[in-house]
Amino acid sequence: MQKHDQDFIKRKNRTTVFELIRKHSPVSRAEIARWTGMSPTTVSRIVNELYHLDFMHEIEQETTSVGRKAVFLQVNPKSVLSVGVEMDKTGVRTGVVDLDGKVVGIRYIARQPEEPSDATLGKIADGIQTLIREGGFDRRRIVGIGVGLPGIIDHDGGRAVLSAQLGWKSTDIAPLLQERTGLPTAVDNELKVKSLAEHTYGAAAGSKRSVLIGFGSGVGSSLIIDGDIYRGESNSAGEIGHTIVDPGGSLCECGKRGCLQTYIAEAALLEKARKIKPVSGLDELFQARRNGEGWAADILDRAMAFIAVTIGNIACMYNPDTVILTGKLVEQYPEVKDFIAEKCMSEFVWEPLRGTFRIVYSAFEQDGVIIGSGLLAQSRFLDIASQIDQMEQNQI
Amino acid sequence: MQKHDQDFIKRKNRTTVFELIRKHSPVSRAEIARWTGMSPTTVSRIVNELYHLDFMHEIEQETTSVGRKAVFLQVNPKSVLSVGVEMDKTGVRTGVVDLDGKVVGIRYIARQPEEPSDATLGKIADGIQTLIREGGFDRRRIVGIGVGLPGIIDHDGGRAVLSAQLGWKSTDIAPLLQERTGLPTAVDNELKVKSLAEHTYGAAAGSKRSVLIGFGSGVGSSLIIDGDIYRGESNSAGEIGHTIVDPGGSLCECGKRGCLQTYIAEAALLEKARKIKPVSGLDELFQARRNGEGWAADILDRAMAFIAVTIGNIACMYNPDTVILTGKLVEQYPEVKDFIAEKCMSEFVWEPLRGTFRIVYSAFEQDGVIIGSGLLAQSRFLDIASQIDQMEQNQI
Repeated sequence: MQKHDQDFIKRKNRTTVFELIRKHSPVSRAEIARWTGMSPTTVSRIVNELYHLDFMHEIEQETTSVGRKAVFLQVNPKSVLSVGVEMDKTGVRTGVVDLDGKVVGIRYIARQPEEPSDATLGKIADGIQTLIREGGFDRRRIVGIGVGLPGIIDHDGGRAVLSAQLGWKSTDIAPLLQERTGLPTAVDNELKVKSLAEHTYGAAAGSKRSVLIGFGSGVGSSLIIDGDIYRGESNSAGEIGHTIVDPGGSLCECGKRGCLQTYIAEAALLEKARKIKPVSGLDELFQARRNGEGWAADILDRAMAFIAVTIGNIACMYNPDTVILTGKLVEQYPEVKDFIAEKCMSEFVWEPLRGTFRIVYSAFEQDGVIIGSGLLAQSRFLDIASQIDQMEQNQI
Repeated sequence: MQKHDQDFIKRKNRTTVFELIRKHSPVSRAEIARWTGMSPTTVSRIVNELYHLDFMHEIEQETTSVGRKAVFLQVNPKSVLSVGVEMDKTGVRTGVVDLDGKVVGIRYIARQPEEPSDATLGKIADGIQTLIREGGFDRRRIVGIGVGLPGIIDHDGGRAVLSAQLGWKSTDIAPLLQERTGLPTAVDNELKVKSLAEHTYGAAAGSKRSVLIGFGSGVGSSLIIDGDIYRGESNSAGEIGHTIVDPGGSLCECGKRGCLQTYIAEAALLEKARKIKPVSGLDELFQARRNGEGWAADILDRAMAFIAVTIGNIACMYNPDTVILTGKLVEQYPEVKDFIAEKCMSEFVWEPLRGTFRIVYSAFEQDGVIIGSGLLAQSRFLDIASQIDQMEQNQI
């Protein structure tokens, strides 16, 4: 066998053992050997390497069958870290995320709404370096950066195609952050990374295919199949806000008529309300409905029906096992939650699909994008073999 | 190494070599050894087995680099066959499908609309036996049966949950056919298998993710990702006909209001037309529009807008590279094709998605379901190693 092939197998075996322990821990050395078909000697060698470099620890547990103690292996969740970044109009939140999806350090960076992109990205790069340094994180354990932001994102190119909220168009993100930090960087739409977080460790943990629906400044969704984001051809799958529900309906900002989001986006609801009364925001609109004002009830009842329609339509298209709801409109007003709980399944979901999925609410709320971005970076750049190589070269 | 493990590796290597030749043919023995990492001796042994049993043949080709002739291997498409079955209200078509998706034998079986399911399934089992015998097909080369029918299908259980067209409810299909023919049987919705045929060898060949949309007695769609049907939790993904476009709209047969199919299903259009004039079918309705009758134009213009909306909405949800259209309404009337060609992309598709996909028409038309069902059976039951074992035992 060639030296090159030997290296390849060695690297592959390391990753296999690490992933196996990660996903099925606690596991014993004997189980690893049995499941992988590797020899006990090979398994021991790899486990010792991983153990020596702090990638895992041993725990003693009673084995159920014989009652005596046995040694099991468990991955150390702090042994692989990534940086998750959430970008918004007025600020950026960065966090260090571990293998279990826990945020173990956080740093806020202010941003002016009109700030040029390179100024913002420069600040983020500096902020990440400070976050790592001041948090005392081992730089060699950080596998990469993930960035989540609103808009149409070219995931492969690490670029914002269009982000109306940030005012960015054709803006490179990954190249600049990579150059300034030396860390590989992945970029994605904020709903997509949020769905990854909820699917992996949040409200949909254990799901095989879940969809997150976000009701905010627009309406969007993201489907995860077996742990992977379903992106489609240009990373735009799930843009339910721009599906047309009425070809003769009102004009959407996209230029088409009757897009779903013209019925439920926050701005659309407020615009309708303000034709009648100058409400300051959603809170006041909901208050008006509670006060028995008919015009507010009309607007919100229609919006709630369309929220239920959105859930039902998503179920028809994706046939998921879990629907995760997020966004102010569905999370903050009890009347919306009640409406969904009481009416959605029975009146707006196609009969054969009733009971095939559950409706849950985001578990991570404000940290969802940071966690998801961090997990995105881990899944894209986690190559345990090269981490070990690097550490060995550095004689950790 | 245990005898059991040796057998396992032997079987796995056979399948690897067969799939490699199938997907990349023509390939040389040296290429197989290089790509798989197997020794030349192992490759030769497996290739000789496959060759001896007629699974492949050799072809001579000039190699571009040196100009001399070299021997390449090519899979014999007739070496693996399956039976595809298309079930409809008044008849069943069965066909023998080869590895290239070609129909190499066909047989029609009449059916009474009210016929009980076991009578129909009995006839199909007999018909398949006759088809195989009279066509002179080698029984040992047939890996299984695939059945495509309209309705909600429990793919895992091989059962029709509900097929309104056939009048079947909770009807076992696979168990009976398996018992009567001895062949493993897979069952699926007709649009799903049709999309598999078009994606693999038809109008969307070469696509990574394509959606087939069928406009017929209902409206439905089927997404294929990298050659696999996306089924969802209960094999109902893609039921766009029951997405709601108007929560206050007309009552659908499903009990909800404003389902998309109430705007474009053939029956819905005819029902609307017959309130004005007793037309015999779609042809007459289109003729009325051509004659300048305003009421017919109103009904069909609205239907065409909703066809375009359906395509645009599918693009938003699935972000495919190819949309395949099928069904009488879109295939048989030039005015519909023209409308789609002229208006769909520019007026009904969200701007960022324009040009990210192409719109094509079904390449297989009436054979699509047979071919797709046959391919489904091949993908589910093709285990080249056990075919060889069986042939060796039978000393072919």
